Amino acid sequence: MRFKIPKVVIKRLPIYLRTLLDLERRRVEMVSSQELGELTGVSSAQIRKDLAYFGDFGKPGVGYDVGYLLTNLRNILGLNKEIPVVLVGAGHLGTAFAHYNRIPRQGIKIGAIFDTDPQKVGRRVAGLKIRDMGELEETVGRLRARIAIIAVPAPAVQEVTKRLVEAGVRGVLNFAPVSLKVPENVHVHNLDTTLELQSLAFYVEQDTLRSSGAEPRG
Amino acid sequence: MRFKIPKVVIKRLPIYLRTLLDLERRRVEMVSSQELGELTGVSSAQIRKDLAYFGDFGKPGVGYDVGYLLTNLRNILGLNKEIPVVLVGAGHLGTAFAHYNRIPRQGIKIGAIFDTDPQKVGRRVAGLKIRDMGELEETVGRLRARIAIIAVPAPAVQEVTKRLVEAGVRGVLNFAPVSLKVPENVHVHNLDTTLELQSLAFYVEQDTLRSSGAEPRG
Repeated sequence: MRFKIPKVVIKRLPIYLRTLLDLERRRVEMVSSQELGELTGVSSAQIRKDLAYFGDFGKPGVGYDVGYLLTNLRNILGLNKEIPVVLVGAGHLGTAFAHYNRIPRQGIKIGAIFDTDPQKVGRRVAGLKIRDMGELEETVGRLRARIAIIAVPAPAVQEVTKRLVEAGVRGVLNFAPVSLKVPENVHVHNLDTTLELQSLAFYVEQDTLRSSGAEPRG
Repeated sequence: MRFKIPKVVIKRLPIYLRTLLDLERRRVEMVSSQELGELTGVSSAQIRKDLAYFGDFGKPGVGYDVGYLLTNLRNILGLNKEIPVVLVGAGHLGTAFAHYNRIPRQGIKIGAIFDTDPQKVGRRVAGLKIRDMGELEETVGRLRARIAIIAVPAPAVQEVTKRLVEAGVRGVLNFAPVSLKVPENVHVHNLDTTLELQSLAFYVEQDTLRSSGAEPRG
């Protein structure tokens, strides 16, 4: 495929994947784009358009074969194999991650956890032993981890990212309120909860102004 | 303003705010859109365009007055006062939140934390006493909290949201892999880390295919 697929489309694919996994568990064999729409909150027209970027998966008037579409979505997302991920930081956030991300069959597997705190190193969290940061490069190489979750304090994030990238990581999930500098071939997804709360505040505030009769901005 | 401001613009405003706060701390008085661009990773043209939605803040050839722009951005985002937020769930994720979100002067203040676990209720986390879920409605009303962070297990999220909305909450930050059903006047921001990891996996996988000479999809 020679055209660029919009990022918003890529972000919706995992939502479809999750919904199809639910349907498979409930032994549903066929699903229409209307039904998928109701389950995902995405319009049926959008779903058909999104999936059409990757192929012709539906049968007109019948819908999608759940198993077939599932296999294809897994292939598209590269989740047909298990993807090893390393997690840096075993504080509250890192620990939450280690626990939340052991969902089976979603392709992502945390293969190692690191921390600098000697009090934490050697302990176990969610079945994994916390390793010393000194083992980072060797472990990333051995696991062939291309993706890392960074849950360390903000001042340490850039340096940790640098080491991860040098060790071969090409995708980083960053929680710190820091604009990471990375080479062009490295993807960063930022999940900054303060920014999310502040933009939520904007919308809630505008609604309050609107309902009080004032002129809103948004 | 009668036109609708794009969501991506609203999401960038807190990034500008954070950068300007840094500049203020460093006692920088004026900043050009070029400098702001370097600090935020957003292009200077985009910054000028984003800010122009809200007013005429810059002086041609000189740049922006840091203090003046800061005051305006705080007003726009509704962060000129402290916004009370409630946090539901005092597990690892909720605890991480309680600790990470005590950044001063960013307008957001967690006013109460709730959990159902009798072992947790009454304990303190980051200076706040964990309350029983039975106190939810009364507390939301008393604090006039319009925004809530939900960090409870996925099966409980919809019910918790329903109670929060009935108590007056109009903005929800959701971490669970659940498509929340809310009335039209309630805003939901989803931070689904599994989805983020899966879309990261897509990009990393496509780059690997590209560098191996195969035809990538993205």
